[in-house]
Amino acid sequence: MQKRYLMTPGPTSVPAEVLLAQAQPMIHHRAPGYSKVFMSVLDGSKYVFQTENDVLIFSSSGTGGMESAVVNLFSPGDKVVVVNTGNFGTRFVQICEIYGLTVTELAYEWGEKANPSDVAEALEKDKEIKGVFATHSETSTGIVNDIKTIGDIVKDTGAAFIVDTVSGLGALEFKTDDWHVDVAISGSQKALMAPPGIAFVAVSKKAWDMVEKSTLPKFYFSYKKSMAALQKATPQNPFTPPVSLILGLDEALKMIKEEGLENIVKRHNVLGKAARAGVKALGLEFFGACDETSNAVTAIKAPEGIDGKNIVKIMREQFGITIAGGQGRIAGKIFRLGHLGYYDKFDILVTLSGLEMTLRELGYSFDIGAGVSAAEKVFMENSF
Amino acid sequence: MQKRYLMTPGPTSVPAEVLLAQAQPMIHHRAPGYSKVFMSVLDGSKYVFQTENDVLIFSSSGTGGMESAVVNLFSPGDKVVVVNTGNFGTRFVQICEIYGLTVTELAYEWGEKANPSDVAEALEKDKEIKGVFATHSETSTGIVNDIKTIGDIVKDTGAAFIVDTVSGLGALEFKTDDWHVDVAISGSQKALMAPPGIAFVAVSKKAWDMVEKSTLPKFYFSYKKSMAALQKATPQNPFTPPVSLILGLDEALKMIKEEGLENIVKRHNVLGKAARAGVKALGLEFFGACDETSNAVTAIKAPEGIDGKNIVKIMREQFGITIAGGQGRIAGKIFRLGHLGYYDKFDILVTLSGLEMTLRELGYSFDIGAGVSAAEKVFMENSF
Repeated sequence: MQKRYLMTPGPTSVPAEVLLAQAQPMIHHRAPGYSKVFMSVLDGSKYVFQTENDVLIFSSSGTGGMESAVVNLFSPGDKVVVVNTGNFGTRFVQICEIYGLTVTELAYEWGEKANPSDVAEALEKDKEIKGVFATHSETSTGIVNDIKTIGDIVKDTGAAFIVDTVSGLGALEFKTDDWHVDVAISGSQKALMAPPGIAFVAVSKKAWDMVEKSTLPKFYFSYKKSMAALQKATPQNPFTPPVSLILGLDEALKMIKEEGLENIVKRHNVLGKAARAGVKALGLEFFGACDETSNAVTAIKAPEGIDGKNIVKIMREQFGITIAGGQGRIAGKIFRLGHLGYYDKFDILVTLSGLEMTLRELGYSFDIGAGVSAAEKVFMENSF
Repeated sequence: MQKRYLMTPGPTSVPAEVLLAQAQPMIHHRAPGYSKVFMSVLDGSKYVFQTENDVLIFSSSGTGGMESAVVNLFSPGDKVVVVNTGNFGTRFVQICEIYGLTVTELAYEWGEKANPSDVAEALEKDKEIKGVFATHSETSTGIVNDIKTIGDIVKDTGAAFIVDTVSGLGALEFKTDDWHVDVAISGSQKALMAPPGIAFVAVSKKAWDMVEKSTLPKFYFSYKKSMAALQKATPQNPFTPPVSLILGLDEALKMIKEEGLENIVKRHNVLGKAARAGVKALGLEFFGACDETSNAVTAIKAPEGIDGKNIVKIMREQFGITIAGGQGRIAGKIFRLGHLGYYDKFDILVTLSGLEMTLRELGYSFDIGAGVSAAEKVFMENSF
């Protein structure tokens, strides 16, 4: 018997209440009973997004949500700026290029944060820029970009501000309206504590004006089709929605409302702090600009002479703890602990304990218990 | 207390075993445990598709699968033929046109079946046709097109044959390879007895050759990206898959394998026959070319002077039975009984009984019990 612990930055652990809500009898997506749940999910999403903008829902992964922003707002040849701080910034670059946009890439070393003044400079240099893409929490490196400051820069220009907050929303502070985000993109499988399969977008008035002018082809991800279905007498989706996931998500959003966003952000602050304290006490080095904002994912360098993939493998096989390795160009060089969503103190403790036993087995030298006791101290000093 | 019965042509009733399989603890989509389930789902899908071709899976509705065939095989300006026998044929026309294909539409009255010789004629007239699109079971009208004969016509031309069998696969006979279907498209929420949120495509060698030449932009629905992820050491999806739906679908496919495709087709034959016998005994008229192949959906004309929407409403509100109304241009004029997937004798009985009580309330005159007894007779004479 081996208990399993899921400590990756998505999909994340799903509460039993949510898992079981999916097991409700199937309902028809054009009948009033579905509309009621759907509206409740949209209400809950607006609360988490902190927005009065329209929220649209797609049956897809977060990447589908990212692609939707590109094909709905732009036309071939449009000039855009992409802030690229890692794997998911690179994905925005790829999608924009495939759809024929002219991309100015602000590329940073993986692990670095974006410098908002670079965005200001790019927008200043070319007044024809129609969109700025950025990643809130860069899941691949653990860093969190300063979306608020970038939003303040973009808001008075003609450009739309598009933000991937797939692994940020519901864990870190994120204010769609106050931060002037025109398309905020998220997914069900991260801090929202639900299974993967739903992408959300929150679309501002400024973004809708661009939707009117966009000539890129779209059908499945069409914002206009989504909006038209939403405005029917029984609000619905243009194409069959993932009903069981919607039922689960509704339950998850109710749990989020009950805890309260402010408390949730506070909890993630403490979990992140404890994870960092534990890692530091083991003498490990963080990857890149890991700081007090890195509360969704902790990215750690594999110690000299140890392959990060081995850490992930031993954690999973011997201790039942699934963590994530490095993606893309840093595969094998780092490993990542996800702690966004349905996580509490002892999930951090378990992970640090498994990490200690794994590192010892790999011959890395440190004081046994140093990681877990550092985390315990953080929990005793910081309530949530 | 009112028991609920879902008798629509999708989403369909989901067995409790499948509903509960979704409630398993979340697993990570890049870990070996997921690969195992994913491969099992692909195996099961190949069995249902009756194919040796590659099966790819998308987190989307069936419409996403339809769009995927267009954007992966074709280039702007390519000439295609679309067989249009209803709402879902029309959808193929719309998607092809939005992506800049030059469409020859073979449009039939709603309720009619396509005439395969029209396809032969269109292909004969223009040798540059690169694709033929058709619908197997046209959910909006209940008719079933003769895919086998159309496949025989298309196979020796340069055109790819793309078939939407979203509401056919797993209920009606469908042989991807024997019928020379190059892209067969289906979804999880119909005869496969799983919740909505997964689209499948079975892609032939001929289709892959066209994928190589296609210039239409695609990212999320890219067949090449899907195939590359599938060919990794731990087979996976390029973007986060809907893990809980995959777990449910795996269970559903196991149930399908256990019953056996031949038995399933036989069961649907008898269910369809019983539904038609019941409807006929009530003196109602079928919509269009409803015949012995219409075993997924029975489409019925609303009797003179009665709004089809009222039949749907009373069935749902007073009797707890959800059936479907008419779509598009025939809204209000017809109503549809879905019986594809997890359905047995008494589901048909319940539906006919609810229909009798509803029609009587709406003032339609017939012998009470005539519908259910006609169905009972069919069940006594036809085993499955």
